[in-house]
Amino acid sequence: MRDVCVIGLGLIGGSLLRAAASAGRTAWGATTSEVDADAASRTGFDVVTDVDTALRRAADADALVVLAVPLTAVNEVLTRVAEHAPHCLLTDVASVKGTMLAAVRRLVPWSRYVGGHPMSGTAESGWTAGSPELFRGVAWVACVEEDTDLTVWADVAQLALDVGAHVVPLSAMAHDETVARISHLPHLLAAVLAAVGAQGGPLAMSLAAGSYTDGTRVAGTRPELVRAMTEGNRAALLPVLDDALGRLGATRGSLASTGGLAATINAGHEGAQALASSREAHRAEVQVSLTAPDARSGLTALGERGGRITALAGDTATGEVN
Amino acid sequence: MRDVCVIGLGLIGGSLLRAAASAGRTAWGATTSEVDADAASRTGFDVVTDVDTALRRAADADALVVLAVPLTAVNEVLTRVAEHAPHCLLTDVASVKGTMLAAVRRLVPWSRYVGGHPMSGTAESGWTAGSPELFRGVAWVACVEEDTDLTVWADVAQLALDVGAHVVPLSAMAHDETVARISHLPHLLAAVLAAVGAQGGPLAMSLAAGSYTDGTRVAGTRPELVRAMTEGNRAALLPVLDDALGRLGATRGSLASTGGLAATINAGHEGAQALASSREAHRAEVQVSLTAPDARSGLTALGERGGRITALAGDTATGEVN
Repeated sequence: MRDVCVIGLGLIGGSLLRAAASAGRTAWGATTSEVDADAASRTGFDVVTDVDTALRRAADADALVVLAVPLTAVNEVLTRVAEHAPHCLLTDVASVKGTMLAAVRRLVPWSRYVGGHPMSGTAESGWTAGSPELFRGVAWVACVEEDTDLTVWADVAQLALDVGAHVVPLSAMAHDETVARISHLPHLLAAVLAAVGAQGGPLAMSLAAGSYTDGTRVAGTRPELVRAMTEGNRAALLPVLDDALGRLGATRGSLASTGGLAATINAGHEGAQALASSREAHRAEVQVSLTAPDARSGLTALGERGGRITALAGDTATGEVN
Repeated sequence: MRDVCVIGLGLIGGSLLRAAASAGRTAWGATTSEVDADAASRTGFDVVTDVDTALRRAADADALVVLAVPLTAVNEVLTRVAEHAPHCLLTDVASVKGTMLAAVRRLVPWSRYVGGHPMSGTAESGWTAGSPELFRGVAWVACVEEDTDLTVWADVAQLALDVGAHVVPLSAMAHDETVARISHLPHLLAAVLAAVGAQGGPLAMSLAAGSYTDGTRVAGTRPELVRAMTEGNRAALLPVLDDALGRLGATRGSLASTGGLAATINAGHEGAQALASSREAHRAEVQVSLTAPDARSGLTALGERGGRITALAGDTATGEVN
């Protein structure tokens, strides 16, 4: 089992360090926060505040380096990687994959990089919010591009599997389009709702119940994290935002003219049913050989159909799909 | 303690029948669903399928009649009330109060009516989804108009208190404006999000995590219930929808031009903090005499400040406010 070096020990990085250690990996981490490093060390984790030292150790051990720093800090840390571990096995957990890929290609061109993104998180953040169980059963995107080395991809996928996640193979572009829809748009709608709600003053806050608290929950996320992911995914987010604006505008027009909202509400109900049935559907097993000539397109086709890889053995990835 | 007659035994009515009985009230109910009536009777509740019989018993006992039927069935049931219990003490649990008040004034002009609305609910519905604990700690609006008889209001408020709720005194208009903001808009945004998300197909459903499942949860509510409350609150909902559209349009414009989303995201974060601090704030005790000349405006002023009545004793309502 390959060693793991986690740079950045917030909610995701801190949870990953715990989970990798729990899975029996030799794992160490670095954070520039003295407080977090102290807290991690006191609970038995191998953590330093010197990122360079952690990276040099990774280069020596040919460890898998996981960047788990905020998007705003990525370029700075990639510069360190280029200096101290330029050929390393590299992945990340950032919520935007196209700009990450471009940054890695520019700043650490000799690294063996496969982008990653675990679809988990809470409105909480920081080392203390972490848990080794954070990734249990969640989808973890592991990117496959036309030039991806699938042995590197398998290393990244195996780490995700070891911490309890399911692996979704996707291109960076397919990832970014999809998260615009199911993560970045929800954050913006939650922000709009929380702003409109707060305009209602103490009375509105007093009457706010389930529909409002659910709809605004992620508006409590740290603004700089939400800005980084939404602003960083501009090209994919714009058409999704236009779709939402068009639907909300049609809703407004319909309410003002005929007074009827059936189209909006029925479409929403069908959408809710689509989510529920995707969670319940019978899943069939599929296998993809990682050494086949069309392995990359086989993997991304599986991901695009909503499939997930649940095991790797030798050169074969086993997945399930509806 | 006044007897209680609940007409309609879905989630809210069924929970209220259970809670009123638990609080020691003599309580009976009526539902046109044979299945629900059977289920309720088998668990020891006094339930009939003949609404007229239940209403005549209420007239004889001078019971408080609670209409808990869907908005679409209100006019039909009010006609029955006018026939069998025309002078009864009457309240309801509907999510729109202006149209209810107008319907009651038109169809049952001699009833002693005070509108009500418990701010609770789930995406579930029906008798079997109910619980006697559904109202514990929730805000229950009890309407106060210029001509409201406060002895009737106190009867309605006491029932809400007996089942564990806090009472918010408000005019029908203030209620409708506020629920447009914190309940009806959230339902429409959830519907829009669920529709945009589902356009992403199985891949989008596979990657959907917390922000999406939270943001779309109420889109699973039965469409006819959501239509009735949103379409029934058209006048109050339109300006709120315009506010949301304006903010979402500005978000789109900002992302397309400067690429920055700070204004949207910061306003949302402030809104989330306003909700959190309203839940945590120190609350001061206030008392309102129900026999004072300005009692009605004293009550609605308390409600509009985000205050809640937590006890009634004699002619005095005790409340708390931030």
